[in-house]
Amino acid sequence: MSKKLTTRKEDYSRWYNELVVTADLAENSAVRGCMVIKPYGYAIWEKMQAELDRMFKATGHQNAYFPLFVPKSLFEAEEKNAEGFAKECAVVTHYRLKTDPDNPSKLIVDPEAKLEEELIVRPTSEAIIWNTYKGWVQSYRDLPILINQWANVVRWEMRTRLFLRTAEFLWQEGHTAHETKLEAIAEAEQMNNIYAEFVENFMAIPVIKGVKSENERFAGALETYCIEALMQDGKALQAGTSHFLGQNFAKAFDVKFTSKEGKQEYVWATSWGVSTRLIGALIMTHSDDQGLVLPPNLAPIQVVIVPIYKGEEQLEQISVVANEMAEKLREVGISVKFDNRDTYKPGWKFAQYELQGVPVRIAIGPKDLEKGSVELARRDTLSKEVVPQDMVVEKVKGLMIEIQENLFERAKNYRDSHITEVENFEEFKEVLETKGGFISAHWDGTSETELKIKDKTKATIRLIPIDGKMEDGKCILTGNPSSQRVLFAKAY
Amino acid sequence: MSKKLTTRKEDYSRWYNELVVTADLAENSAVRGCMVIKPYGYAIWEKMQAELDRMFKATGHQNAYFPLFVPKSLFEAEEKNAEGFAKECAVVTHYRLKTDPDNPSKLIVDPEAKLEEELIVRPTSEAIIWNTYKGWVQSYRDLPILINQWANVVRWEMRTRLFLRTAEFLWQEGHTAHETKLEAIAEAEQMNNIYAEFVENFMAIPVIKGVKSENERFAGALETYCIEALMQDGKALQAGTSHFLGQNFAKAFDVKFTSKEGKQEYVWATSWGVSTRLIGALIMTHSDDQGLVLPPNLAPIQVVIVPIYKGEEQLEQISVVANEMAEKLREVGISVKFDNRDTYKPGWKFAQYELQGVPVRIAIGPKDLEKGSVELARRDTLSKEVVPQDMVVEKVKGLMIEIQENLFERAKNYRDSHITEVENFEEFKEVLETKGGFISAHWDGTSETELKIKDKTKATIRLIPIDGKMEDGKCILTGNPSSQRVLFAKAY
Repeated sequence: MSKKLTTRKEDYSRWYNELVVTADLAENSAVRGCMVIKPYGYAIWEKMQAELDRMFKATGHQNAYFPLFVPKSLFEAEEKNAEGFAKECAVVTHYRLKTDPDNPSKLIVDPEAKLEEELIVRPTSEAIIWNTYKGWVQSYRDLPILINQWANVVRWEMRTRLFLRTAEFLWQEGHTAHETKLEAIAEAEQMNNIYAEFVENFMAIPVIKGVKSENERFAGALETYCIEALMQDGKALQAGTSHFLGQNFAKAFDVKFTSKEGKQEYVWATSWGVSTRLIGALIMTHSDDQGLVLPPNLAPIQVVIVPIYKGEEQLEQISVVANEMAEKLREVGISVKFDNRDTYKPGWKFAQYELQGVPVRIAIGPKDLEKGSVELARRDTLSKEVVPQDMVVEKVKGLMIEIQENLFERAKNYRDSHITEVENFEEFKEVLETKGGFISAHWDGTSETELKIKDKTKATIRLIPIDGKMEDGKCILTGNPSSQRVLFAKAY
Repeated sequence: MSKKLTTRKEDYSRWYNELVVTADLAENSAVRGCMVIKPYGYAIWEKMQAELDRMFKATGHQNAYFPLFVPKSLFEAEEKNAEGFAKECAVVTHYRLKTDPDNPSKLIVDPEAKLEEELIVRPTSEAIIWNTYKGWVQSYRDLPILINQWANVVRWEMRTRLFLRTAEFLWQEGHTAHETKLEAIAEAEQMNNIYAEFVENFMAIPVIKGVKSENERFAGALETYCIEALMQDGKALQAGTSHFLGQNFAKAFDVKFTSKEGKQEYVWATSWGVSTRLIGALIMTHSDDQGLVLPPNLAPIQVVIVPIYKGEEQLEQISVVANEMAEKLREVGISVKFDNRDTYKPGWKFAQYELQGVPVRIAIGPKDLEKGSVELARRDTLSKEVVPQDMVVEKVKGLMIEIQENLFERAKNYRDSHITEVENFEEFKEVLETKGGFISAHWDGTSETELKIKDKTKATIRLIPIDGKMEDGKCILTGNPSSQRVLFAKAY
């Protein structure tokens, strides 16, 4: 922590990249487009995983694990899905290297070890999973199948950014199979609701729920439910999607069941996922020019205690107080780090924990020992106050809730003040360029119009709101009739 | 659960495969050598993960995530390691598919999307991780690095078996970096001890600790610590390894640090891992001809309650008792399933839970309602007893400990009775063929002799015991002097 971060105003995109790296969350690797998730970043992901996993299990889902590779013949079975991912997939063609005859210290691909059929590194697992479900489903008694997988996937993106878009990323993907269409739709909606609940309550990121237009739908889905968040630069970010897949995959992989009435029917499907991309959303929603700001629910370290001292003896006296305080905080379930390293000065530590977004910092100096007090600083508001030592536990317990709520409210105020209704295309363009955010506008419902708007402005339909009221209006581009506003934005 | 399992005596290998599939643990997939880990099998892995993760963190390790792919130039940097894995690695050569011009419903590899440098799907991550550590280490203050990764790896094995040897498997791999040789050795030993503790106390599998001979060492290691278990067919199984890597990787990737004395020195390394292979060991250690036997610590369902009833009314009455009992058991942390499905008969359920190794089964019938009793059956001993309903919680709590201990003792007795000391090669061959197990014998310490013995008998040195006493003797093959017995066995 030697030099200052680029500010958001100076260069938002650079601010983001610098922050990810200097806060020790992740870094680029030697592999094009793939990142290394560092321990501090991974600890956030672990907290996200634990909570999501709990929510999935509470709604009857179980985890399983399917192969990393998809044989090409399975990959291409569901045509739209294949088409959607074929352009950006890593392909394994050989299974052995051998010594280079021209240079014995080098290895080359052994041409004799060519695979009969190429293997695709999964960009998503519908194909391999539905090929497996075929063997699992005979009768209605075998349904529903409610399975989730925690896995890595690979999409060979050309332009990558840490967390937001990487060639390999970590995610969970749910894949469920149902007797009826209605049951599958209910599942897809339920999981979208779970995502919304998780992202809002746990990550303190407000989202809007909706469905995607046909253009933006998942390749192979009949309906894509989604949650969309708004970043501080006015761009939207898709935070999670849940797909109603109809019978597309059941038909592609011939997955039928005998119904209660004794008929052979195709199974109905859903899939749903969130990924390490959410960490990008977390960073861009809450952080500021001083660095990361983490909601207490996701902070690997919730409270840091920094001693301010001269000499061994003072450090020892402060340590007694600090260790006791840390112990009491841990007893109420708060994670605490007492940073008593003498290789770094307090000022450096303050800056470092500010950069890393630790929600509460407690400083204890010689005067605090005399007065029985500590200095307590909040990362979200950058405010400080002096608190009696015997009130620290109560105070911090309260702050964990208060900070979590404050971050959500702050982000929600920003988001709400960046939803603009417009009535025509001129307004649309102006708001997009000057203010950004979500633009609520009428649209005639055609892909053609949507693509034209995208072409002219780079904005896409982020969602058709689920709770949006019906309202007659005219499409901002074509003037054709519309019955509901949709939300446009530029997006990550 | 319609037909009986092949017995262990009839065909051990077939018994194992049938058991894995019928108990719903895993199955083969459409991808050569890759398995699908089904929810019941994955739930066991999750319990293993949770406990190991806790143990790693308690000893100061943090999780992180490194790329799936290793560029060929990095892969070949540490020569021995590269040589060890080059023969069995999956190679990504292209990043796109395109529509087959001869058959528009098919996809082919796009020859224009050939990677400049091939990517190896990680068989292990030393190369990619040490290339990363290079950027993380400047001074002694940056050490130690104590990192673990939960990941999938791929080794293109030609003969695969569910859990025991699969082309893709799940594992954890620890990779640590240290200032001194002694510290690195201590770390490697510590992690081997943690593995032993975990496998013995949590999985109820007795193990012997030791180090590998040069032949059996990890490619690139100076010393490989290991734990070895014995399966019921007399074959050994390597249950975990921890490697002291010396400065091999630091030199290959030029990872140096400035020491306290201001000198530039290479970093010392360890790596250590256990995998889903341990589930194979779990199955083969405890299970019997009726099916799986699970230690309570790892059982996804610890207690199953099966109602025995005629008609709705009886089921309702039994359900009241069963639900209350389940609730009380859950309150003391025991996982319970009340299987009130009316699509299956009690006999079918009994057989199914026996096959799936549920440690305790409670049956409640009309007579039990009258008498206030239940029938309680133990999976490990296949014994039954009648227990008053109000004593069930205490009884089951005790059984969780008792069954765990009993399984360990049973396996330990078997193992201990299958360690045979031999004095010459005739004896060696006879014991190997008739009894199997570990054979404790003198060896002259040369790779040449070890390979000759392997050639003649298929047995290898499983380990040089760490706690083995020194004893003068003569090598069973060459008669050359030896100062310590080593353990030979045929192995998985």
